Amino acid sequence: MQRYFVNDNQLNNNHIVIKGSDVHHIKNVMRMQIGDKVICACYQKAYLCEIEDISDTVNCQILEDITKNTNLNGRVSIAHGLVRREKTEEVVRRLTELGCSKYIPLIMKRSIIKLDKISDNKNDRLLKIVKEASEQSQRNDLMEISSILSINDLIKTLKDYDLLLLADANEENFMLKDIDFSNNYHNILVVIGPEGGFDDEEKRVLVKNGFKVVSFGNRVLRTETAPLYAMSVLGFILGEKDED
Amino acid sequence: MQRYFVNDNQLNNNHIVIKGSDVHHIKNVMRMQIGDKVICACYQKAYLCEIEDISDTVNCQILEDITKNTNLNGRVSIAHGLVRREKTEEVVRRLTELGCSKYIPLIMKRSIIKLDKISDNKNDRLLKIVKEASEQSQRNDLMEISSILSINDLIKTLKDYDLLLLADANEENFMLKDIDFSNNYHNILVVIGPEGGFDDEEKRVLVKNGFKVVSFGNRVLRTETAPLYAMSVLGFILGEKDED
Repeated sequence: MQRYFVNDNQLNNNHIVIKGSDVHHIKNVMRMQIGDKVICACYQKAYLCEIEDISDTVNCQILEDITKNTNLNGRVSIAHGLVRREKTEEVVRRLTELGCSKYIPLIMKRSIIKLDKISDNKNDRLLKIVKEASEQSQRNDLMEISSILSINDLIKTLKDYDLLLLADANEENFMLKDIDFSNNYHNILVVIGPEGGFDDEEKRVLVKNGFKVVSFGNRVLRTETAPLYAMSVLGFILGEKDED
Repeated sequence: MQRYFVNDNQLNNNHIVIKGSDVHHIKNVMRMQIGDKVICACYQKAYLCEIEDISDTVNCQILEDITKNTNLNGRVSIAHGLVRREKTEEVVRRLTELGCSKYIPLIMKRSIIKLDKISDNKNDRLLKIVKEASEQSQRNDLMEISSILSINDLIKTLKDYDLLLLADANEENFMLKDIDFSNNYHNILVVIGPEGGFDDEEKRVLVKNGFKVVSFGNRVLRTETAPLYAMSVLGFILGEKDED
């Protein structure tokens, strides 16, 4: 069934008002009628709804709370050196499916992409991908897309996290496996470099601020593969929220 | 440094003869000269070589064995319901980076792709992607690409494996985490369905033949994301060959 994401302020008692581009989708793409059913996801909840009225907005009545927990038992944020648009889009789509909480595009010295090449509508496009991937993977929340940060900006946010990892293809000894995950980390940040990897100074600053340098294995992963590896493995380790 | 894959029969004492399309690459793309150095990977070994002669073949002298183990501590094979060419290519590229041993395209009832739409040169193209991804990720071996199998063909090969997993988005209780990996599995086969998932009869036959049905988490992964999740997590669990 079609799933639409709505905000708190679109929910009022047993009714939900769908607005914006979703109205076009319901009317003209799905050609839905009064009485048809949709799922509305709102702040980690999912509701089975029946369409009551279709005009400039679509008004729905909530029939049932059908929330199924699709969250991991903890948050994983990925900060990723700026890469080409197509790569970013693919990474954002797959990270959403894999349960990532936040994607942070990072300005780094060895990024091929320069900041002035990034168009204004890039973020809108990424939000659209997150929404589509959340619908497809049946998430009830949307992965957050951060504005583009510098490493200094990122460092100001570190108190939010309880484990800081820096993925480095040159690291040979300390593996992800060597982290003691029995510490029950619940808010993990992983920094992954662009194609050219980390500049020495960037690495030094991050390590000084508490990042552990880890290897993702003996093979060199592409910059767009490393986030998927990190998210898959950390998601597996954290487990699903409704597990025992 | 540029890495070329050669066969056993191209290695003779301290010399390696590079043949075929790699010769074109060395002469016309890289424009290498006598005295330039390349890495030749041959049957799980990597050699630093110096070019001695360039003609219809490129003759090299081995200077040093620089083999670094890039294998996992076990084999993971992924059997994947036939999907569109672009998706197959992306999956094959990333699975190679992640250390997968074998990719098996599987004819399944709900595959959108029909067998007669697959062109003869598809396998050559996949082998080229495996070679490129092996060079980039610095593997010394090539991921094997199986010919396209039916489920009945696959079942005839099961004695090779010590753990058989079937990834099902409809499974809600038995997670990958519930497998007792202290059993030290060393040859794992994972079957992943196409976009439409498994047909009931396919699932029944596979389960009857020893497959455990597992969930990859509470989010529904796309058919091209599930193999990357499986390979990342199983690679993490198996660990790297030279670990203690």
